Amino acid sequence: MRATAIRALALDGVAQANSGHSGMPIGMADVATVLFGNHLKFDAANPEWPDRDRFILSAGHGSMLIYSLLYLCGDPEVTLDQLKNFRQWGSKTAGHPENFLLKAVETTTGPLGQGIANSVGFAMAEEMLRARFGKKLVDHNTYVIAGDGCLMEGVSQEAITLAGRYALSKLVVFWDNNDITIDGKVSLSDRTDQVARFKSAGWHVQEIDGHDPAAIDAAITAAKASDQPSMIACKTHIALGHAAQDTSKGHGALTNADQNIAAKEAWDWHTGPFEVPAEVKSWWESTGSRGAADRTEWEARLADASDARQKEFARVIAGDAPKKLSATIKALKKQISETQPKVATRKASEMALEVINPIMPETVGGSADLTGSNNTLTGDLGTFDIDNRKGRYVYWGIREHGMSSAMNGIGLHGGLRPYGGTFMAFTDYARPAMRLAALMKTPTVFVMTHDSIGLGEDGPTHQPVEHLAISRATPNTLVFRPADAVETAEAWEIALSQKASPSVLSLTRQNLPTVRTEHKTANLSEKGAYVLADAEGKRQVILMATGSEVEIALKAREALQAEGIGTRVVSMPCWELFEAQDEAYRRKVLPAGPVRVAVEAAVGFGWDKWLFSERGKRDKGAFVGMTSFGASAPYETLYEKFGITAEAVAEAAKGLL
Amino acid sequence: MRATAIRALALDGVAQANSGHSGMPIGMADVATVLFGNHLKFDAANPEWPDRDRFILSAGHGSMLIYSLLYLCGDPEVTLDQLKNFRQWGSKTAGHPENFLLKAVETTTGPLGQGIANSVGFAMAEEMLRARFGKKLVDHNTYVIAGDGCLMEGVSQEAITLAGRYALSKLVVFWDNNDITIDGKVSLSDRTDQVARFKSAGWHVQEIDGHDPAAIDAAITAAKASDQPSMIACKTHIALGHAAQDTSKGHGALTNADQNIAAKEAWDWHTGPFEVPAEVKSWWESTGSRGAADRTEWEARLADASDARQKEFARVIAGDAPKKLSATIKALKKQISETQPKVATRKASEMALEVINPIMPETVGGSADLTGSNNTLTGDLGTFDIDNRKGRYVYWGIREHGMSSAMNGIGLHGGLRPYGGTFMAFTDYARPAMRLAALMKTPTVFVMTHDSIGLGEDGPTHQPVEHLAISRATPNTLVFRPADAVETAEAWEIALSQKASPSVLSLTRQNLPTVRTEHKTANLSEKGAYVLADAEGKRQVILMATGSEVEIALKAREALQAEGIGTRVVSMPCWELFEAQDEAYRRKVLPAGPVRVAVEAAVGFGWDKWLFSERGKRDKGAFVGMTSFGASAPYETLYEKFGITAEAVAEAAKGLL
Repeated sequence: MRATAIRALALDGVAQANSGHSGMPIGMADVATVLFGNHLKFDAANPEWPDRDRFILSAGHGSMLIYSLLYLCGDPEVTLDQLKNFRQWGSKTAGHPENFLLKAVETTTGPLGQGIANSVGFAMAEEMLRARFGKKLVDHNTYVIAGDGCLMEGVSQEAITLAGRYALSKLVVFWDNNDITIDGKVSLSDRTDQVARFKSAGWHVQEIDGHDPAAIDAAITAAKASDQPSMIACKTHIALGHAAQDTSKGHGALTNADQNIAAKEAWDWHTGPFEVPAEVKSWWESTGSRGAADRTEWEARLADASDARQKEFARVIAGDAPKKLSATIKALKKQISETQPKVATRKASEMALEVINPIMPETVGGSADLTGSNNTLTGDLGTFDIDNRKGRYVYWGIREHGMSSAMNGIGLHGGLRPYGGTFMAFTDYARPAMRLAALMKTPTVFVMTHDSIGLGEDGPTHQPVEHLAISRATPNTLVFRPADAVETAEAWEIALSQKASPSVLSLTRQNLPTVRTEHKTANLSEKGAYVLADAEGKRQVILMATGSEVEIALKAREALQAEGIGTRVVSMPCWELFEAQDEAYRRKVLPAGPVRVAVEAAVGFGWDKWLFSERGKRDKGAFVGMTSFGASAPYETLYEKFGITAEAVAEAAKGLL
Repeated sequence: MRATAIRALALDGVAQANSGHSGMPIGMADVATVLFGNHLKFDAANPEWPDRDRFILSAGHGSMLIYSLLYLCGDPEVTLDQLKNFRQWGSKTAGHPENFLLKAVETTTGPLGQGIANSVGFAMAEEMLRARFGKKLVDHNTYVIAGDGCLMEGVSQEAITLAGRYALSKLVVFWDNNDITIDGKVSLSDRTDQVARFKSAGWHVQEIDGHDPAAIDAAITAAKASDQPSMIACKTHIALGHAAQDTSKGHGALTNADQNIAAKEAWDWHTGPFEVPAEVKSWWESTGSRGAADRTEWEARLADASDARQKEFARVIAGDAPKKLSATIKALKKQISETQPKVATRKASEMALEVINPIMPETVGGSADLTGSNNTLTGDLGTFDIDNRKGRYVYWGIREHGMSSAMNGIGLHGGLRPYGGTFMAFTDYARPAMRLAALMKTPTVFVMTHDSIGLGEDGPTHQPVEHLAISRATPNTLVFRPADAVETAEAWEIALSQKASPSVLSLTRQNLPTVRTEHKTANLSEKGAYVLADAEGKRQVILMATGSEVEIALKAREALQAEGIGTRVVSMPCWELFEAQDEAYRRKVLPAGPVRVAVEAAVGFGWDKWLFSERGKRDKGAFVGMTSFGASAPYETLYEKFGITAEAVAEAAKGLL
């Protein structure tokens, strides 16, 4: 009856909403009941207790499973009303589980494969924090329910090979092996031997009847004891006991009233919709509070720790940047403005990390096999490995997607702040996770180097042209394209101070001069855009640029000024932050009147916003940039051939005057 | 010496360019020599002969391997000058192999995993065309060289499980098992048992010494004989014989002159840079022309076929749409305009496919496990399967990326025209392949349904808001967002007539009224945007909309006209095509003067281009749409709550007047 309560609630919730997925919660109810009843360390009243076990529903469409569990266990956020308002406006019980709506939901799932890939990050974070703070404060498991869809998605391969490589033994994945997808039997599109596949990645694998509580219990016990990550293949029946059992119809919303009544009969369940017999509810509530004792013991152990340790633990769990970050960045900026190095911004990023990583022990660096190109490794990090859980640098391999998704998991776990690098063109591979970082409000930092045709000879496959637009079009994402080492340091300070927005750092391969030659303590990038060089004489032209093209704008300004044309240069390292300023500031930087020319070595998509924002006046504008994919050649040639030069910018300005 | 010629040319090409990847061509030279020398069916002088074996360098960074091979074999496009101009502006020997620069390059590789995923499409296409045209005209193998990077990328798992599921026995993958990635030993980031992994996916697997010609030859022979797809794990030494052998340094550009001289000594190679001894060159040239006889025999067999068959074969290989497509679409449009169905555009898409698929036997449909939602299956297609190679519908499983990449492969193979569906939000998963379709100029059709918050209860994970912008920002991509069943039919006609651009069809889940109620034979969508309803009285307002929001714009127009405000509604189903029109047409549709309001249930990123395109006049503009991610609720509620309504549009217009 304990598992049946889940089934009945899931059936009722979906029927009430007239949409959703009934079959998966029904099929996995037995597994969930044994996991929550006998193993999961949690305290339903305190879903954010840092040392709880993590439960991740990778098969997020089965969201009524988690909502039913939370309601039954007494999570104060998940009331009966919430179940009745499943999938309705304003309710916390969204179509797919969303971490920003419910505290007990660890991560937002639904896009398949993301949960299992996040879980790699969760399990890594646990290892890293245990190594740092000790077993008394950090010692928990990560449990995942994944479906056939999760395992067919490519990202799952990246995830399971990472988990295998790093022997994440506290990760346990239940595979809901129900043989059904939306289009029909799994065999219609897949005949993979999943057991052999997981073994090939270094996993401990068990196969059980997913409806046999004793078998489930024994398997979880064995999984916890294993020194490898563990996969439990649970043979289940989707929509068990319902007319739609074992069919793809059972995957979706079961809303036929007669069939639903018959299913409840078959389950021997005789209460009305959303009603749970008192003794069943009572057992679940005791399950929900079982972990309260664990929690209070843990709190006592935390109280035993030194004040400094308690404070530090609280700081990193809260995701607060250390106070000295600001002073550290200021000092670096001063030094850069004085020495004026000509370096690529990827190198400038390394310079920033060299001073940041020592004062922020919560950073976790990494790269998708481009460490030397992304400049993401600094001397003090150490390599995360099976025998070095204190290592803070992860060699992610050629897995941009898995890296990004695992970074999200690290951040969502709490206590750590992940950043990871790849080439900016491979934003494409990382996209599903980059979008979810924004939706989930987790401040992952994506270090995207080689950010234009400036990449040179590798050619158009590796030269991003639309990727700035892609990231800028994504809500709740800060996209930084710093012009020099000073702006790069400023971008890092802002990115590492975020608590609810991911950042994308768009960094060059090629060297750039220092354009911020005068030291300012203020973080100018914080306003998104600012006047880097103002017009001498009457202001006739405003040149706007980001990143490597700021140098070009400055040269164009020189040429225009030489002809007596007053020209302002505005550096725009972060559009989103500029947009967030009040209108007065925006008008101060971009006053109406002068003609405007924007230059960026990317497609112009989106730039019209800044070129023509002051309507009804003479605000003519032009864009100098790319209109096609790039090409393979040394980068200086490419800038010349694609017409992204100071001459072209000056000409464009003069053409508008 | 035959393989050494490759090694020496690769070393010289990279050294001359001072960039590139030397080690992989050096390591795989023996495999390539045996493959080209003994097995590959090709005729270097005729690289586009339809029945050639396909050779795909999935590890595209090793591009000097393919360029060296083509030069040695006498490909007329790859001259010695091309080798000497490796990676230079205007040369055909780009940093990574690009199918649009060299005829013999089947697909553009470099973004790892794409080649092996494309190859699934190549092998499927061969099966399908063999089933249709017979073994006399179609009977060839697909060979792939993949590196560790390709196999770590998630898309490789989607690819190999598809190949296994569909028993693509004519696909042979050589794994360059050299233990090295850019960051170090493979084991640094991966310890997968690749042999077991491929076996788990249903592959025939062999392990050989990749420097032993006899072993290579025997393995290829066995692979060809297998009734499964075949993986040959070739143990190789990266940069064999060079000081950088077996190191990650050997992966990149080997430019140290002394070390390069020493390597040539070690190889017993004594000619100057780019020089190949005559007898070696002569052997390679005979290899390059070995297939000429096969080709002439094939041409004779083709000539034996009936005229109709020859014509049809030529038509599909050329990628020409059948003549009757236009008349078929016109008839459908007429019927729709008369019956005025209220259907979702995903359903309208199915209506179009119902009349298209019977007259275009070259279409290959499919979906990533959302067949019933994407409406991609029509009655006559049949299911592609091991025992039904004539089937034209592919159940791709939950593999958006693998599907998209394989579709590119099907298109690049020639003779077939693939389309495939998923939810538009999962553009994210498909992105790497969607970008490459655009770069490679292959007209894949991406059927993206559930294209806005109109998806409803599934919530923000499944509701695209930035994905129209993402596709529109991508060069050489036609993005269609049709407003009704007529525009949907027009979009399909245009998409299926493309020869060098992919199309994205953005289609609704929710029903829409027919707005094109008056039949026009002309394809109005072909101009990208057109006047759907003109102003009555003085034209004061222009409303611009796409897809599901055209209905809203029309309602807003009614309200505005009722207040005496002359309002034009412009439907903009395809921005890219509108941009391609001359200025006179664009001005006719969007004249200066009236205020402009755009409405689209997506972020406004990019819309400023149309809102403020006529500067210096009173062209005020406003956008009504999304500024955040969506939410989970019935779709009517979402439109209301997010303020995307006729009232809001009318108010915005009045606010500007």
